[in-house]
Amino acid sequence: MTDFDIVLVHPEIPHNTGAVGRLCVCLDCRLHLIRPLGFHLSDHYVKRAGLDYWPYLRLTVHDSWEDFLAASAPSRLFFLSTHGERSLYECTFQPGDTLVFGSEGSGLPKPFYESYREQLFQIPMPGAHARSLNLANAVSISVYEAYRQLSGCGGTSPL
Amino acid sequence: MTDFDIVLVHPEIPHNTGAVGRLCVCLDCRLHLIRPLGFHLSDHYVKRAGLDYWPYLRLTVHDSWEDFLAASAPSRLFFLSTHGERSLYECTFQPGDTLVFGSEGSGLPKPFYESYREQLFQIPMPGAHARSLNLANAVSISVYEAYRQLSGCGGTSPL
Repeated sequence: MTDFDIVLVHPEIPHNTGAVGRLCVCLDCRLHLIRPLGFHLSDHYVKRAGLDYWPYLRLTVHDSWEDFLAASAPSRLFFLSTHGERSLYECTFQPGDTLVFGSEGSGLPKPFYESYREQLFQIPMPGAHARSLNLANAVSISVYEAYRQLSGCGGTSPL
Repeated sequence: MTDFDIVLVHPEIPHNTGAVGRLCVCLDCRLHLIRPLGFHLSDHYVKRAGLDYWPYLRLTVHDSWEDFLAASAPSRLFFLSTHGERSLYECTFQPGDTLVFGSEGSGLPKPFYESYREQLFQIPMPGAHARSLNLANAVSISVYEAYRQLSGCGGTSPL
């Protein structure tokens, strides 16, 4: 088991959540969704994107962020956001870590940028016209970096 | 500039190609699509997924794999596939490398598994019910691993 929790706060686009569910099954991570969601979980697009993986997904839906904190008591939280000043690659992940992502349209709830300022990290985007990545892609990059670190694989070959 | 080329061979789902286009703009990679495609490039879903990034995308569409090889003369090819026996994290990437991905439904063209057997790599999926990742997610994980290596960032903390 890859011992990570992934949290999507107010996700809006069903096929992104479906693709993240599929990712979580592939890595055996738990997925938490924080209401309100921009779709019904019975949505055709959620299940189509999650393919036949959905029944294997360890999914919890929470009515609020506070409910999530109370229910899950996360030990360490990492917030991935274009507002982060430090890079994802500065994180040193541990088993049991929780990675949190905001919504496609508006990112994390505004108060988070203050309350969790020390835990905000961004995915580096060197392109001159870069602005943000697709949500499911951002989750994939981040969770696989955590997995890579914990499995001790992948060297570096600095230029 | 992140000096990588990404190739999608016969992609089928427009919003995956759109999301990969957006990723390529964020990392300033070139994108190659090999015909036949399962959609028209003017498709609403391609552009919606690619948002307003599409005009900045360095995109080439090739009529065949052979046309791609002739036009691009890639120096080193890495094929990402669930058929790969070695892990993505065994790759040591260099500037100018080309990463190749098959279609959502059927993967790479069958002859590739033989012709490029030594260059096939898989993304590890430790989940008991894992089968495959969404195409755009797989591209994101792979290209960001290449980027990470070349930028010399991200340590490892083996368990």
